[in-house]
Amino acid sequence: MTNPEKLTTDYLEIVERTLDEVLPKPGERPVVLSEAMRYAVGTGGKRIRPLVCIASAAAVGGTAEDARFPAAAIELLHNYTLIHDDLPAMDNDVERRGKPSVWAKYGEANAILAGDALQALAFRAAADAPRNASKIVAALGSAGVGVVQGQVEDLVRECGKDGTSGVPAPLPAECVDFVYTHKTADLFVAAAAMGGYAGGGCEEDIASLREFALNLGLAFQYEDDLLDGDSPYPREKTEMLVRQTTEAAVAALAKLPGDTAFLGALAEKLVGRKA
Amino acid sequence: MTNPEKLTTDYLEIVERTLDEVLPKPGERPVVLSEAMRYAVGTGGKRIRPLVCIASAAAVGGTAEDARFPAAAIELLHNYTLIHDDLPAMDNDVERRGKPSVWAKYGEANAILAGDALQALAFRAAADAPRNASKIVAALGSAGVGVVQGQVEDLVRECGKDGTSGVPAPLPAECVDFVYTHKTADLFVAAAAMGGYAGGGCEEDIASLREFALNLGLAFQYEDDLLDGDSPYPREKTEMLVRQTTEAAVAALAKLPGDTAFLGALAEKLVGRKA
Repeated sequence: MTNPEKLTTDYLEIVERTLDEVLPKPGERPVVLSEAMRYAVGTGGKRIRPLVCIASAAAVGGTAEDARFPAAAIELLHNYTLIHDDLPAMDNDVERRGKPSVWAKYGEANAILAGDALQALAFRAAADAPRNASKIVAALGSAGVGVVQGQVEDLVRECGKDGTSGVPAPLPAECVDFVYTHKTADLFVAAAAMGGYAGGGCEEDIASLREFALNLGLAFQYEDDLLDGDSPYPREKTEMLVRQTTEAAVAALAKLPGDTAFLGALAEKLVGRKA
Repeated sequence: MTNPEKLTTDYLEIVERTLDEVLPKPGERPVVLSEAMRYAVGTGGKRIRPLVCIASAAAVGGTAEDARFPAAAIELLHNYTLIHDDLPAMDNDVERRGKPSVWAKYGEANAILAGDALQALAFRAAADAPRNASKIVAALGSAGVGVVQGQVEDLVRECGKDGTSGVPAPLPAECVDFVYTHKTADLFVAAAAMGGYAGGGCEEDIASLREFALNLGLAFQYEDDLLDGDSPYPREKTEMLVRQTTEAAVAALAKLPGDTAFLGALAEKLVGRKA
């Protein structure tokens, strides 16, 4: 069992290398699009979803290289959703990660289009998985629909049917599960399933990975609520939900045949994170 | 050789049935998203790209059913591009096919998101192809990036780098090939390649289908220019280009092993169309 710190460095190198490989080269025509796509994806982020993807390949006995295209794919898809979330018609955010958001820097039309191209590129990358590519694409496609369903449900609540105005209201309890499961957890579930398939896992392994990732995604979102101070539940209940989902995530790992130390450490670390 | 009229009816039935099967059910949560997605895709359109896809399967000796998911996929992708093209930040069109555009009916945020979900659903559907699914998804992914590259190049010309204002100017000659190839022809090329792969074609067949579809796509665009009266070239030159590309398309069919009568008839028909 290699220590998680060293593995993180190795995995991140693979993720950054593969993202650089699949993105349009700097200067590729049209230049503004290639630039905007690269700007949005950036370099050196936490890359949590690709790490889950690669570590899921390891958890079924596969290698990190097996999962490099699916890992890049899930990060590309995640980044397209961030570009579109920031648009004036959605959250109207002019900043992301301390820098101008894509629409603030490149204009609204280019931001919409850069997001669209990143989504297509995500599927193009996923298709290059060394095995089970059609199952990997299907998992990414389901998550791609799911994440939008979660976002729309969240917007309907916030802003009325057109989603263009109004002040955010608390998320009603009957919407919390739907929004958190789809808007947040679906991408974690896809990351884990894609990695498991790429690593050669059987359907039972994939089911365990999905269970792990659903709970990890929910824990991640509840923890976010605690950090942002905008939980739909009282603080004590949210803290209990973080503990319960983290434990459920870790418990799901027991059924997997490969090295799950990295995924276990990741779950524990996400819960204690500061930002 | 079945007559093309009868085949068109048969193929369209398969396309409409498969689109209905893969789209979210009416009333599926969130309802506004399911509605907007179905509204955008509509029913009973010309469905030219899916017809090319299905007929390409036949042209390599496959069946129409082989290509039904790729055919639905290319139509879903095409329709997402139309939703986003109509947005205020792009063409700012309040009508499409004589009805309110998606953003005019459902609001800007929902239109962006419905387009995003249709793109994801396109890849989800393509993954269900009965064979060569990873090649089919790769072809769709390349076209999905290409169509955006063409659109950005077109916008940069029209509106300056932010694409949000300004009056359309004539497309400079050095941009015509790039924009027409990517914005229009890429989806035809993908439709043909996907159908060919789904029908079990070899790489030589796929190359012939791509050559057919590239020329068909260009002929389609030149013919559009004639109908709209906004060709970047003098009318005589555009008419000559329509003839040349149509002939090149038909010539590429000769190398294919299956029934190409439908594709040949389609090429001839597109050239003489009235709208």
